[in-house]
Amino acid sequence: MEQPSSQHLWRRLERVRRRLDEENLDALLVTHGPNIRYLTNFQGTSASLLVSGNVCYLVTDGRYLTAARELIESIHGPRQTELVSVIHKYEETLGSLLVSSNVVRVGFEAARMTVRTHSSLSAALEQALTGGRAVPALVPTTRVVEQVRILKDDYELATLRAAGRILTTVASNVRRTIRRGRQEREVAAEIDATLRKAGFERPAFDTIVASGPNSALPHAQPTDRALVEGDIVLLDFGGVFRGYCVDLSRVATIGPPSETACRLHAAVADAQRAALATIRPGAWASDVDSAARRVLEENGLGKAFGHGTGHGLGLEIHEEPRIGRRETDREHAAALGSDGLLSSGMVFTVEPGAYEPDCGGVRIEDDVLVTDDGYELLTDVGRELWVQL
Amino acid sequence: MEQPSSQHLWRRLERVRRRLDEENLDALLVTHGPNIRYLTNFQGTSASLLVSGNVCYLVTDGRYLTAARELIESIHGPRQTELVSVIHKYEETLGSLLVSSNVVRVGFEAARMTVRTHSSLSAALEQALTGGRAVPALVPTTRVVEQVRILKDDYELATLRAAGRILTTVASNVRRTIRRGRQEREVAAEIDATLRKAGFERPAFDTIVASGPNSALPHAQPTDRALVEGDIVLLDFGGVFRGYCVDLSRVATIGPPSETACRLHAAVADAQRAALATIRPGAWASDVDSAARRVLEENGLGKAFGHGTGHGLGLEIHEEPRIGRRETDREHAAALGSDGLLSSGMVFTVEPGAYEPDCGGVRIEDDVLVTDDGYELLTDVGRELWVQL
Repeated sequence: MEQPSSQHLWRRLERVRRRLDEENLDALLVTHGPNIRYLTNFQGTSASLLVSGNVCYLVTDGRYLTAARELIESIHGPRQTELVSVIHKYEETLGSLLVSSNVVRVGFEAARMTVRTHSSLSAALEQALTGGRAVPALVPTTRVVEQVRILKDDYELATLRAAGRILTTVASNVRRTIRRGRQEREVAAEIDATLRKAGFERPAFDTIVASGPNSALPHAQPTDRALVEGDIVLLDFGGVFRGYCVDLSRVATIGPPSETACRLHAAVADAQRAALATIRPGAWASDVDSAARRVLEENGLGKAFGHGTGHGLGLEIHEEPRIGRRETDREHAAALGSDGLLSSGMVFTVEPGAYEPDCGGVRIEDDVLVTDDGYELLTDVGRELWVQL
Repeated sequence: MEQPSSQHLWRRLERVRRRLDEENLDALLVTHGPNIRYLTNFQGTSASLLVSGNVCYLVTDGRYLTAARELIESIHGPRQTELVSVIHKYEETLGSLLVSSNVVRVGFEAARMTVRTHSSLSAALEQALTGGRAVPALVPTTRVVEQVRILKDDYELATLRAAGRILTTVASNVRRTIRRGRQEREVAAEIDATLRKAGFERPAFDTIVASGPNSALPHAQPTDRALVEGDIVLLDFGGVFRGYCVDLSRVATIGPPSETACRLHAAVADAQRAALATIRPGAWASDVDSAARRVLEENGLGKAFGHGTGHGLGLEIHEEPRIGRRETDREHAAALGSDGLLSSGMVFTVEPGAYEPDCGGVRIEDDVLVTDDGYELLTDVGRELWVQL
């Protein structure tokens, strides 16, 4: 099944509606593309979705009307959803729709809507009012749909498991293509071609192939540097399969690994094992980070680990849960989405790293699913240094 | 030269500073990635740039510090720029920086900053204040850097011309790969591979290969539908070369073209010629659109053309100028960026189309540079129907 069914969409929508009730909202204006796709299967790049208590309105423009109409009539379409066409500006159409649908408190996605759109929408609401009605209140919300998305449903788990298996196969093939003399860029292009051939729609992000000193930059872009003897080669790539993102990092060396490569790699591998061992429902996300961070600190590499331990995966390559540093006030951090309790059904990366400027860096990354009693690896290919003799 | 020099960056910054003076701003907080790249060559995905009257602050986090430091010290780095490291949250660091740099009126990019970031930043400003100082005022701005970017400099023109030539070559190769029996997805994957091989960093957007009835969807995604006799095949693809985007559409048919294919194609090709003929400094962007629209209306295809005629190209695949419908109040539209006078140095697409649901669609797209006395085509490959016998 290449798309969730109408039934899946309906169950997701019911979870969103429960959250609206909890927040005392009549409706939610969804403007973030991946949230719209999650609730409707609509994949156009311009649309808004108004979720009210008994009906949804999918608002889009001329470019997508035919596709949206066909979707709504199909077995993969959202139920009880009306199509609204934008004639001139989105904000004007939304303003009229909000007024005519008689909602009083409308949530909007404050972490997604720009200040400018918010002011245009407020102005359009005032304009659309007739006959002394009260202006619908625009209420800032964050993470309403995102907190539903954080727990994957059976369709999503099947898709992410399949994606993880394909990425594992891709990684085994990639391992054989790292050779001295090849440029970072060539290797990256070949990884991207392999991702496509294996069944991914596209790379999930710009593939990283960072060799020698470049490997010390956690987010390096591939250059025309050719791989030479003694190099550490950091590989970080992922693919999008039926809309879902998976992500993996491994490290190769050209010729026998240097002392630095061995030292960094051993510490990072230990850190990843320690992090994985903490994963179970009820643990804090930051516990996973702390476990990795402690191992690296014990190896004198605390400062060499400048990023978080992981990020959620799904329709976006970076989503909740965030697996980052423990903050002083955990409950507060949880309310903001920077920490939280793990639950069965969450999917995220575990990717500690250590980087020594001008020298080199190592990151090992796998994707995991939180299960009822621990975790399941979605990606699984040799975590040792990939030594290319 | 793979990147603009410090000198280029400095001239761009001076143009931005003149605009700040005009708007009576002490500083501008740039948060939109392509704007930051334009002014600094910094390419990380997380950063902010504070441009004040005599110094710039590039604010980034641990993942990008090393790369940012190396950039600033290089001949491609921004001058008079200090690096500021984010320890905890961007908004906190920015709040402290704004207070300590003593600015009074700070522009922010209202069309880029989310409502949530704006409230966090406002809160951080209050918190950072000490000793009865006035809170710096956050002033919404739109299009400050974008209006500088709309006129390409010599580095950008050379890059876009090279990118257009490479895309032309790619298109000639692609033309030979459209064959009956192949799936839309396979053709798209091959186009992407060809783009990479030809020197593009990556596709500029998700390549469109839409065959038969799918061609009637202006933004279709490639499916596993195989090309069959009689199909219209709409191809729309582009690449990113040294950061700059180019974009092209052509239409093929499998076997001799149908009456519909011929009729739509002839009208769209006429519409594109009419649109191109209007391009010169001093013309309105909406004149270009009107010319294309008039031809399609005369052919009874007014309603079949549901999108604008074009969009600017540069560091983003969609930027200013927007080549869209004429609005009643042109001057007002120009202030909002939805219309405007063309000037020498602007680069945009000209891409009229006509789509008949369930039947098929045609779009012809080229990239042009406005010159002192007209326009220059950046892409140029046969605009006739690519008939595959």
